[in-house]
Amino acid sequence: MANEPWLEDDEQKAWRSYLLMWKLLETHVARHLQREFGLSASDFEILVNLSEAPTGRMRAFELGQATQWEKSRMSHHLTRMEKRGLIAKVACDARYPEIAITDQGLDAIRACAPAHAALIRELVVDTLGTDRLVALGEASDDVVTAVGKHLETTCPPAVRGE
Amino acid sequence: MANEPWLEDDEQKAWRSYLLMWKLLETHVARHLQREFGLSASDFEILVNLSEAPTGRMRAFELGQATQWEKSRMSHHLTRMEKRGLIAKVACDARYPEIAITDQGLDAIRACAPAHAALIRELVVDTLGTDRLVALGEASDDVVTAVGKHLETTCPPAVRGE
Repeated sequence: MANEPWLEDDEQKAWRSYLLMWKLLETHVARHLQREFGLSASDFEILVNLSEAPTGRMRAFELGQATQWEKSRMSHHLTRMEKRGLIAKVACDARYPEIAITDQGLDAIRACAPAHAALIRELVVDTLGTDRLVALGEASDDVVTAVGKHLETTCPPAVRGE
Repeated sequence: MANEPWLEDDEQKAWRSYLLMWKLLETHVARHLQREFGLSASDFEILVNLSEAPTGRMRAFELGQATQWEKSRMSHHLTRMEKRGLIAKVACDARYPEIAITDQGLDAIRACAPAHAALIRELVVDTLGTDRLVALGEASDDVVTAVGKHLETTCPPAVRGE
């Protein structure tokens, strides 16, 4: 049995707990953003990335790397956000425009950021305390490294979106 | 500053690490299921829930509670899975049929389960080791409890989908 790849009971239990947290947190935080600020989790993700870019602009493929979204999802979502005035496409290059956050987009992210941070603080930071949160961050870094290694060994560059 | 709800640098760093793990793991596991077994992460989630139900059947609202999906997403996805023969709607009650996993659905989940478990073992279980995985599970349980309390204090029952 030692070489069986199946999960042991305690491993399975911990993994299920993690999956439940992931799902509840994702859903709850998304509903909070939508209800209080009229932003979807996808809107929020794009606005955070753009607002933290040094120039307030990124190309769609850079947003794709940051969000891991598929191209078609990115394209459709950016079109919807442009119609709502949250972003603008700036055509420095006609084929690959830059995506820029607008003043309206900046206002939107500034309006929701404090309440979003407060929610994360209440649900996660204060719940776990600093030591356990830091341990969660270190565990996360190790899993991120493992995923990166797995991608290198199993997928040709084209599959990695490069 | 003590009462500011913003995140401290080390908290922010840990939270970002967690978000990156969440995103990479979700994307990588979903692509693996799609590439190797032709199942989306959504297909997998429904099939796991049904295959673990004692009768192999659940009502749509029970699947909704388990997955936290919105009603319209659930309805559309179940229709697509029915067309592909993975599930069947069993009309014990014309308005609220039960969703049953089919033999084809069972074959699909049995075919991918070992490889899926092996991937989770490689990326998470073996990366963290048992002690850190159990700690992750306990941290997850505490966050799940915190989200539950937050729901009780902030949302009326209707918003909780009851």
